[in-house]
Amino acid sequence: MVKPWSGWRRSPTNNTASDRGSHPELRKVKMKRMAVMVAALSLIATSWAQGDDTKDGRKPMQTVNDSGMVAPALEKYAQGPLAELWKRPGLTPRDRSIVTISALIARNQTIEMPYYFNLALDNGVKPREISEIITHLAFYSGWANAMSAVAVAKEVFAERKIGADQLPPASPALLPLDEDAEVKRATAVEQQFGKVAPGIVHYTADVLFRDLWLRPDLAPRDRSLVTVSALIASGQVAQITYHLNRAMDNGLTQEQAGEVVTHLAFYAGWPNAFSALPVVKDVFEKRPH
Amino acid sequence: MVKPWSGWRRSPTNNTASDRGSHPELRKVKMKRMAVMVAALSLIATSWAQGDDTKDGRKPMQTVNDSGMVAPALEKYAQGPLAELWKRPGLTPRDRSIVTISALIARNQTIEMPYYFNLALDNGVKPREISEIITHLAFYSGWANAMSAVAVAKEVFAERKIGADQLPPASPALLPLDEDAEVKRATAVEQQFGKVAPGIVHYTADVLFRDLWLRPDLAPRDRSLVTVSALIASGQVAQITYHLNRAMDNGLTQEQAGEVVTHLAFYAGWPNAFSALPVVKDVFEKRPH
Amino acid sequence: MVKPWSGWRRSPTNNTASDRGSHPELRKVKMKRMAVMVAALSLIATSWAQGDDTKDGRKPMQTVNDSGMVAPALEKYAQGPLAELWKRPGLTPRDRSIVTISALIARNQTIEMPYYFNLALDNGVKPREISEIITHLAFYSGWANAMSAVAVAKEVFAERKIGADQLPPASPALLPLDEDAEVKRATAVEQQFGKVAPGIVHYTADVLFRDLWLRPDLAPRDRSLVTVSALIASGQVAQITYHLNRAMDNGLTQEQAGEVVTHLAFYAGWPNAFSALPVVKDVFEKRPH
Repeated sequence: MVKPWSGWRRSPTNNTASDRGSHPELRKVKMKRMAVMVAALSLIATSWAQGDDTKDGRKPMQTVNDSGMVAPALEKYAQGPLAELWKRPGLTPRDRSIVTISALIARNQTIEMPYYFNLALDNGVKPREISEIITHLAFYSGWANAMSAVAVAKEVFAERKIGADQLPPASPALLPLDEDAEVKRATAVEQQFGKVAPGIVHYTADVLFRDLWLRPDLAPRDRSLVTVSALIASGQVAQITYHLNRAMDNGLTQEQAGEVVTHLAFYAGWPNAFSALPVVKDVFEKRPH
Repeated sequence: MVKPWSGWRRSPTNNTASDRGSHPELRKVKMKRMAVMVAALSLIATSWAQGDDTKDGRKPMQTVNDSGMVAPALEKYAQGPLAELWKRPGLTPRDRSIVTISALIARNQTIEMPYYFNLALDNGVKPREISEIITHLAFYSGWANAMSAVAVAKEVFAERKIGADQLPPASPALLPLDEDAEVKRATAVEQQFGKVAPGIVHYTADVLFRDLWLRPDLAPRDRSLVTVSALIASGQVAQITYHLNRAMDNGLTQEQAGEVVTHLAFYAGWPNAFSALPVVKDVFEKRPH
Repeated sequence: MVKPWSGWRRSPTNNTASDRGSHPELRKVKMKRMAVMVAALSLIATSWAQGDDTKDGRKPMQTVNDSGMVAPALEKYAQGPLAELWKRPGLTPRDRSIVTISALIARNQTIEMPYYFNLALDNGVKPREISEIITHLAFYSGWANAMSAVAVAKEVFAERKIGADQLPPASPALLPLDEDAEVKRATAVEQQFGKVAPGIVHYTADVLFRDLWLRPDLAPRDRSLVTVSALIASGQVAQITYHLNRAMDNGLTQEQAGEVVTHLAFYAGWPNAFSALPVVKDVFEKRPH
């Protein structure tokens, strides 16, 4: 088997020289190697290369340079409804950025992260908040999702000279705990699942609700916004009721919650949004007015 | 920390020279850097490099060159049931290609896209139809999924010299709308969710059903096939009923729909297929005969 | 449009030379190209580069070198609860490795695979078992997921000099079939879905239960562990009941099953674990004691 990577180790100058007399088939193989690398890199480049053209806030969507060569309609939609979406009054651009990067991390869509991490910083999301969003989603979307996001955020932070002084400490003084509410929550979960999976009951209390949720560098309302966005974006319908109620207890308004669903229709697809709607409606109707 | 990428910027010739007296540990680090790039590229290479061996239509599956070094059984299954699948009479190779690339885009599996985009073109799916499939799934699978697909399709189109003249315009003359049916649909959704999330109700009418679905470069029946395939492939069971009915209204037969589920068992996994089956069965039974 | 890849073909030495007098904007473009490649590679590098620091079994988690520059808390959690998780008595490190790599393959999270494939081998999972896990998940997670895993495993195997002699044959002598049980299963599925999708009914019998499940190089209990882990990790709640019962018939204990859910809370996110819990509880309660 031809190793598709063996070419890149040699000096390109030598490469050109040695190609001169080579068999056409060999050249074809080399072209193919080329194409492979091009494909690999352009995947990432798509979003990355557009990073700093959009810091002015006037183009809060992927400018989709490439789409003209594949799907010209996408550019039309980007400049139309997608641009309009970010200006809708129900949710601030900062909130929309939190919703969007939560969806991308939850769905592990790394190639769009550089663009939207930069946009989030431009929209007023602090580096320490992005740091906490990633940490939070390590638990709500899975450890590997957070690791992927770390790899991207590291580059974005480095490019913007964001240093350790702008990051949250590993172990900060925690926010005060509502001990009664937590005991009530823990007791209910213990009764339901304590004999099924004692480990998760233990970690849910000790690591999540007595630690992660109390970290001060992301406001509880924003932490809830991250959680609800991740749940909707990854189709976790069964977990929305608890966390949307918690989000609204933490200050998310009904209008904002509805607008989160609208925003996620674009970033996580219409089906995820429509599967969430009946649950969101049910939560709205059952909450005390 | 060793920067895993610092090596590739230097000339490989210099690299070899400077390696000569270097500490074994350092060399190990450099080997590791190499391995990192190799891994990155070979991931993409797997499918890409096999692109043009299969244009004859006789090997309509991933030839899985690499699997012999990891899982020899996969090659056996590729040459057996997977090859057989593409020849089953219930669905044409063109339809199977539409189902497959819809599943890959919905699941964001970019590394298989080059191979299957090429196969789709070989099986008679037009470039303008691939363009519309990606545009359609920007809304039904999420914006980032479409952006990834664009990056891959761009390379495939370039390699096959597919230019702008073969792509659909951004704003074509739309197909005629069944105004009564659309008003009925919109009214039902407005009554259900108009107060929960007015934004999504608005965009569902204006962007999806009064625009996207009327774009002429993908037949309504094929657009439905794309939608249903994406729903099944991403486990969106709750949205299947509406769209499978719409697909069958648009001309998809019962035999074809059943064969879509069979096809997706291979490309989206048995669990997604089996979770779809009860809903598909229910739709079949409730439709007027 | 600037081609983001055109730089890498030239010798870096020439690059430096020709840069000297170039326009600042051009340099910026070149820096950007650099950044693109760095981002592409560091994504993969994150997990890969940490491979051999952890073969002693004392650090059975991602050491997350990079997280200090983005999310210092992640390193704390990695050294705390995540390290503790792998030492919990309910499940052996070997089983935890099987659960983890099944989750990564099911979720197509390639960038964490090199690290965890290596860890699995260190924890006593045989190369032939990893081979069978990938083959098994080609059907339970989808063909493309297996292809991605093959591309990563190939590199891991090559680095560890694991050759064809350590892999299972494509067509081994199969384990004996419980003909009565299989006929019963097949009949039930035929009655339910035989008219809806005859193809999937056919392949489920012939390819899965009369072939794949009988391959001898992964014990039925482990094959069930792989299946259940993949189902929970990808949110396939509706398919858990059948396969968890089968897993327990194959020897998975209740304590182990509960610990699988706990383990997957970390590797597939809390929501997937909590959505699985009611089903797991229900299976436990309904089984004969």
